[in-house]
Parts: sequence; structure tokens; C-alpha cells
Amino acid sequence: MHIDVLTLFPEMFDGVFHSSILQRAHDKETFSYKLVNFRDYTTNKHNKVDDYPYGGGAGMVLTPQPLFDAVEDVTSKSTAKPRVVLMCPQGEPYNQKKAEELAEEDHLVFICGHYEGFDERIREHLVTDEISIGDYVLTGGELGAMVVMDSVIRLLPDALGNKESAPQDSFSTGLLEHPHYTRPADFRGMKVPDVLLSGDHAKIEAWRKQQALKRTYERRKELLEDKVLSKEEALYLKQLESEENSES
Amino acid sequence: MHIDVLTLFPEMFDGVFHSSILQRAHDKETFSYKLVNFRDYTTNKHNKVDDYPYGGGAGMVLTPQPLFDAVEDVTSKSTAKPRVVLMCPQGEPYNQKKAEELAEEDHLVFICGHYEGFDERIREHLVTDEISIGDYVLTGGELGAMVVMDSVIRLLPDALGNKESAPQDSFSTGLLEHPHYTRPADFRGMKVPDVLLSGDHAKIEAWRKQQALKRTYERRKELLEDKVLSKEEALYLKQLESEENSES
Repeated sequence: MHIDVLTLFPEMFDGVFHSSILQRAHDKETFSYKLVNFRDYTTNKHNKVDDYPYGGGAGMVLTPQPLFDAVEDVTSKSTAKPRVVLMCPQGEPYNQKKAEELAEEDHLVFICGHYEGFDERIREHLVTDEISIGDYVLTGGELGAMVVMDSVIRLLPDALGNKESAPQDSFSTGLLEHPHYTRPADFRGMKVPDVLLSGDHAKIEAWRKQQALKRTYERRKELLEDKVLSKEEALYLKQLESEENSES
Repeated sequence: MHIDVLTLFPEMFDGVFHSSILQRAHDKETFSYKLVNFRDYTTNKHNKVDDYPYGGGAGMVLTPQPLFDAVEDVTSKSTAKPRVVLMCPQGEPYNQKKAEELAEEDHLVFICGHYEGFDERIREHLVTDEISIGDYVLTGGELGAMVVMDSVIRLLPDALGNKESAPQDSFSTGLLEHPHYTRPADFRGMKVPDVLLSGDHAKIEAWRKQQALKRTYERRKELLEDKVLSKEEALYLKQLESEENSES
């Protein structure tokens, strides 16, 4: 996979791209990337990338020319049709399914704005995807692009070592993860549940499944709506519901 | 505000903290921060921060001792009760309301894990908040902490210059932002809507309100559920609904 990041602040990406996992994935040639400052593509003499909004109002708006030219340049040699992703609060809410979809692509282009708005023609005629990583306001699109890249790159073949590729990722099972415990068995009087020390693997497995369901029920009920439950899970869920009703 | 970040990969934060807006906010003493490698707090001779999970299974688990000691150290001189935030997929979904809540605090501590799970005793007895920035899996909590910090710091008094503090942030009005346009009025045949060139400010304002409502209706219907609409907005929403019904 090749990734182009169009940004006015390429230096923001240094720390993250040189972090352990992404750096290692990059060294293994799992992906390549290029940070492109789209200010380099301006054709006006002051190197301006933004301008006042038509119709008035506060804030500046990123003008179409530099971004159209930058995208056309980085995609000109691309054989596959690249996905051009605009990071913005108005975008489609990002989730694991979208990460899996993007991980299938050969070439991703990210466009990051920074406090300015985007000229609407960029949305309508240049990008293929608009993504929002969540319902909160950030100072720019750079962090969003890093989040999407991180979640996509870790899905690429061989990107993760064995140590990191936990098979029970939250979201991949549709449930939140069960609690984990490690040594010491007693830390300042806080103890590990007996079942985990029992050596009874069937019992441990059953406890973990129940705990995952319980945590999801307590914290993110809405995740259970689309989930196909096993008979045991459905029974346990009923029990949780009746416990909750008798408490209230 | 003071922020402590507990992480095994402090270098990941360099690019982001040295970016334009956060750097400027830091220079203005809007906030101070410290990156703390909690490996420095281990008391075992191999400096290990993780261990095998009780009950078996893949993946490693962050052990309580270094994190308890690190949090206690960084909060020992804190007069206000600090918020200790664990970044994890099982956490409360982050949103703008939570950003506003955290922006009121004097001292925030972020705990970032990296592929390992957290010993449950950390969740139960050490942290005050568990936050998830979205329903996707990341290689670690560092990017999540950066996202939360960015969204919180920009809300602090004087953090943003005038240029960045757009009053119509998405989410602050409960609607997605209306489209923006800037020069040129005609870019490769793609034109700016006439109303924005009309100079009629009442008409422009009305158009923008309708467009914000339309975009929200088309992309994020669920955001309208809790929204109190003006009479004009309610009328326009009805029109959108009937247009959609006649199309289908």
C-alpha cells in the first residue's frame, strides 16, 4: 500500500511514523508513504492556500487549486484508482468496518485541513471519501489522518508481530474485551479473581465470555443490538437484565 | 492546565506537541505538559512493564505496579484532584461534551497502553475515566490521548487565535457545517452558487442554515433527534423529508 498525506504541517507526522509499530511495518515495506505540503502547489505569487469565504463570515476557506493540483500530481502514476480521503467533522463516522475496507486498497490519499474550511468543490469533485473519526472538534485533520492510517496499517499482512495481534480485539468480536489480570495475584490487597488461578480452562473461558458480555451490556448496550448471540450468551444476557431490573 | 502523559513511547508525541497551534498554546502558557515513560517506575530488575495473563491466552497485560507508582508520583503535588484518564476501546465514547468537561480541569493524567491489555485493577482502582475515541482498533492509546488533548486544549482560554476560532464549529450548533466557497467563482467550470455572490446577507444566512440542516439530514440523521428546531428549520426539514419520500 502507498499512502500520500496532503497537509500544511508535515512535521506533525514525524513522531507517529517513527513509532515502534508503524516504523517496523514501514521497514518491512508493508507500506510506503509520502508527506506532501500542498502549499508547494500554489500558483499564486504569495503561496496562499486559503482565502475569504464568499458570502462573508469568520474563518478562512481552503481554495481548490492547490489541492486539485496536488492530488492530480500524486495520483498521476497510480495504476489503481486511488481513494482520496478528506478528514472532516462532516464526514462519515469512522469505524472498524471502514478500516477493513480501506486496508484492501493499493493507494490512499489523505487531505488534512487545519482550522480552515474546505471549498465545497473539493468535496464534490476531488475526494472519494469524507471521514470523521468522532463527534469532537480538532484543530486540524492531521490527527484524524494518523488515526485512520494507524488503524488501517495494523490490518495489513505482516504489519503486526505476534505479540501485538491479539485475536480478541474489541470490535472484531462485536463485544468489548473481558478483563485481564497479570501478576501479582495480590497487589496491595487487590486480588485476581479465583477462577483465573483455578487452572480450569473451560471455566476460565466461560467466565471470560460472560465478562465480555457483561461489560458490553453495562457500557455500550447499543453494540448488542446487531449481535448474534449464542444460547449461553442469550441466557446470561437475560440474567443481567433481570438483575438490573431488580436493582432499580 | 497541566497534563501528564504516561506512555512507553514518549517520542510519538513530538510532532504533535510541536505543531503550530499546540506549540503556540504552550508558549503562551495556556497549558504545561510532561511526558512520562512509566517504564522508569518499574521495581523489577528487568524493567518489565507487562506479564502473561492469568488464565492463559494471547497478548501481554500491563502490570499494576509501574502505573500505580507513576500516577501517584505525578499527582503527589497536585492540589486539585486530578482526572486520570485511561485510553482504551472499552471506554466511554468520546464527544465534544466530554471535551468541554475535561477543559474545566486543572490537572489531567493520560495513561496510554500499547497493544497490551491493562490489568483490571488499574481500571478499578487507579483511573477516574476510561475513554475511547471511536469504534476502531489502534496500535496504542497514544493517538487517542493526542486527540483528546488537542480537542481539550483548543477549548482553553486564549488557546486559539482569532483565525482558528470559527464560531460555527460542527457539533457546537448541533448541526454539521454548511458548505464553504472561496475564490475563484469559477474553477475549471465548477461554479460558486449565485446566492453567495448576491451580496444579500439575509438570503445568504437563510441559505446557509438550510444547507447545514440538509447536510445533517443527509449524512447524520441521528444528530437531529435531540435538536430543538426553529419554526423555519422544522418547515425545511419537512420539505426534505417529503422530497426524499417522493424520490423513493
